[in-house]
Amino acid sequence: MLSAVSTEPVLVLVSAPTEGEPVAGPGFALADPTVPHLDVNDLGAVRGDGVFETIGVIDGHPQALDAHLLRFARSAAQLELPAPRLDVWREAVLAAVEAARSAGTLAAEAGAKTVLTRGVEGTGVATGWVRLSAAPDMSTARRDGVRVITLDRGFPADVAQRAPWLLQGAKTLSYAINMAALRHARSRDADDVIFVSSDGAVLEGPTANVLVRIGDEVITPPTDQAILAGTTQARAFDFFAGRGLRTSERRLGVAELADADGLWLTSSVRLVVPVTTLDGVACAVDADLTEGLLRHLRTVTD
Amino acid sequence: MLSAVSTEPVLVLVSAPTEGEPVAGPGFALADPTVPHLDVNDLGAVRGDGVFETIGVIDGHPQALDAHLLRFARSAAQLELPAPRLDVWREAVLAAVEAARSAGTLAAEAGAKTVLTRGVEGTGVATGWVRLSAAPDMSTARRDGVRVITLDRGFPADVAQRAPWLLQGAKTLSYAINMAALRHARSRDADDVIFVSSDGAVLEGPTANVLVRIGDEVITPPTDQAILAGTTQARAFDFFAGRGLRTSERRLGVAELADADGLWLTSSVRLVVPVTTLDGVACAVDADLTEGLLRHLRTVTD
Repeated sequence: MLSAVSTEPVLVLVSAPTEGEPVAGPGFALADPTVPHLDVNDLGAVRGDGVFETIGVIDGHPQALDAHLLRFARSAAQLELPAPRLDVWREAVLAAVEAARSAGTLAAEAGAKTVLTRGVEGTGVATGWVRLSAAPDMSTARRDGVRVITLDRGFPADVAQRAPWLLQGAKTLSYAINMAALRHARSRDADDVIFVSSDGAVLEGPTANVLVRIGDEVITPPTDQAILAGTTQARAFDFFAGRGLRTSERRLGVAELADADGLWLTSSVRLVVPVTTLDGVACAVDADLTEGLLRHLRTVTD
Repeated sequence: MLSAVSTEPVLVLVSAPTEGEPVAGPGFALADPTVPHLDVNDLGAVRGDGVFETIGVIDGHPQALDAHLLRFARSAAQLELPAPRLDVWREAVLAAVEAARSAGTLAAEAGAKTVLTRGVEGTGVATGWVRLSAAPDMSTARRDGVRVITLDRGFPADVAQRAPWLLQGAKTLSYAINMAALRHARSRDADDVIFVSSDGAVLEGPTANVLVRIGDEVITPPTDQAILAGTTQARAFDFFAGRGLRTSERRLGVAELADADGLWLTSSVRLVVPVTTLDGVACAVDADLTEGLLRHLRTVTD
């Protein structure tokens, strides 16, 4: 384990983020994170027109890096951005981690955010960067859990298939709704949100996937609904399978959550938090399984 | 009329964009538009977490400036941002126009974009700027019209009332869906889009309001549906009323568009364009009314 230093932000600007830009040298370079680098007319800033990933970096290892980069490329394709140069992005993430490590400022838990935008309006040149920063302290939420409310996402569960222009399932920079949902939760004395489709299917959290244990089955909603494929959720399924539980992706009605023997939110930096109340009603919390899952997510590298 | 020069971009950074920031001097200053001013961790850039307005500037006059600023403040309130200092923003817009005018680079038609973001993550300090730039040449679209397709917005028409966290009716920086809808239109050999609610109500365009004439009535969908109040649409209604037409805000079923005697998209910079085909079917085009409306929008200041 690295010491409990707080990672100073590290910034890597990616000059060759997609196949639309020529590669010079490695295609990226370290930059000063304390000065501005973005044009006010970048379409990421004025249209939320871009995609991102947040990769957990544990003890210096970027977890599920390839899975994140593949999802990054899928999101970019949904937005009809040029294909990201995944080899450049992979090296850029590793360079950011290495820069923090060699500066002696890499915390045990950090997060690397990769951002690709459509670039400055009118130029046709995409913008890309990686920013590494310390993870916030999530020990209380991981141990004591979170209070969650369900909120209507407004869309039917099959919207991604019939209306691809709504970009459901893409991890875009247009996250104002996700942020508003979290503010709404706080205004109702809760910590987080599970979005529900207009036809009653459990979807995802604003920044997390949902996992439910019912008996010996652990379920997550399928990605053909309007949700993101979870990289941490996939790693959690490995853990549950190792414990002899069945894992499945299937549609979950919101009423099924009331019968859950365990309910979790998973995400790349927070890893896993148990849900303790749902819409004000106490949930079954499996402390042993939660602790084992957290240990798995913190120690098993991939 | 000003000469047909192309407005060089003018940038004004707003240092006191909301009541959360202290005012020093006028609260804004001209800045070099050719260098970066935004932090990569600005929540506008990484979360689309902010609001904007685009104000048409015609012959040096920012049209409907107060109406735009009031809508800007309403959008900010929906996002629970601190209240924008509208007096500072008004002066900042006028300063941008004056800078272009005194440089001799103000085109007859320009656009001023005001942007307010939640600022750099963790600082609690909002970011604001005004960017003035030349309007693109829209003479062809205004004269020959646009081919439009209808696209499902996925939400029912009453979603804004029952799910305020979905931010419908706020003009946010999270516009990736709007941009994707326009790309989808181009892929289907069309120029623009009219969004329709999942329950069949006409809503708005990705960057425009919809106006329909049926007989002696001109109709626009009501803002209690999940749409923006149109500043240009309001100015257009003044024109239609002056021509003896009844104007009304009411729910419009998508089937009613087939019976239209005139169908237009209005927006602040493009002003008005007639819709010539809807989902591939020719629309009635009222060239006289369109020409009169365009003249009104270009010449009557407010």
